[in-house]
Amino acid sequence: MDFNIRVAQERDMIAVHKLIKELAVFEKEKHAVEVTIEDLVTDGFREPKLFHCFVGEKEGSVVGMALVYNRYSTWKGPVVHLEDLMVSEKMRGSGLGSALLSEVVKYAHGLGVKRISWEVLDWNEPAIKFYESKGANVMRDWDVVQLDEAGIQNFLNQIEN
Amino acid sequence: MDFNIRVAQERDMIAVHKLIKELAVFEKEKHAVEVTIEDLVTDGFREPKLFHCFVGEKEGSVVGMALVYNRYSTWKGPVVHLEDLMVSEKMRGSGLGSALLSEVVKYAHGLGVKRISWEVLDWNEPAIKFYESKGANVMRDWDVVQLDEAGIQNFLNQIEN
Repeated sequence: MDFNIRVAQERDMIAVHKLIKELAVFEKEKHAVEVTIEDLVTDGFREPKLFHCFVGEKEGSVVGMALVYNRYSTWKGPVVHLEDLMVSEKMRGSGLGSALLSEVVKYAHGLGVKRISWEVLDWNEPAIKFYESKGANVMRDWDVVQLDEAGIQNFLNQIEN
Repeated sequence: MDFNIRVAQERDMIAVHKLIKELAVFEKEKHAVEVTIEDLVTDGFREPKLFHCFVGEKEGSVVGMALVYNRYSTWKGPVVHLEDLMVSEKMRGSGLGSALLSEVVKYAHGLGVKRISWEVLDWNEPAIKFYESKGANVMRDWDVVQLDEAGIQNFLNQIEN
């Protein structure tokens, strides 16, 4: 394996932001990314830190990343959530995805949490197979629900009337 | 509406824990609740506070609750996640669920976040209809993935070998 994994530094946020945008394109939500490089620096490296990030590096370039933060389960207590796991196209099949996931699992185990959670698109069969091969439970009966910015505003307008 | 909504206090955690267990039974995961009343007091009321909780009260009794915390979206920045929204059986249809959700939306708006997220079981049609009537987007193509405590241990055993 000709790459290494390390904790992300501020200067990596340019490359991490690029990976975030690549992932959004893959997920057919090209225009959804409102977070900027500056936001990532502030949110990840100034107190209170809102996430923790690992990067995969090859020949001095960032070619993958895993971004995590804590959640709270009313069943299991504090848990780690993996928001994004992304490997650049040229590095697919290199083992970098597995290595990044391993780093996340070691990190979560170090925190003593009882669960690591994440989300997957149900048509992303390669990802689902990969996660299941790692022992994860893809819960096809649980769906994600979101109220977006416009939805929040509409909701508030309705209860005010 | 003969109930009121307020921010939960430590002393409410007994009733909140009872509602958490009731919700787990409904979700066919009766034995999944490992969190204790003491955990809820520590995790919700000692620094660092891991969640924020609202309760619905009727005639001095807690009859519903909504439990939230912050997450981080690499697309939208800080977001609010609604972990549990639960109304006791005798209060169903009273408007308490809507009132609790309104409180969560006002709270999230006050924090300036661009999204509120939560999760729903795909067979829970009354909940899905309720959420959609409020303008939420039930994303049936996104599934929840979990690596549980045994899964974390197995994963670590495998990478050590």
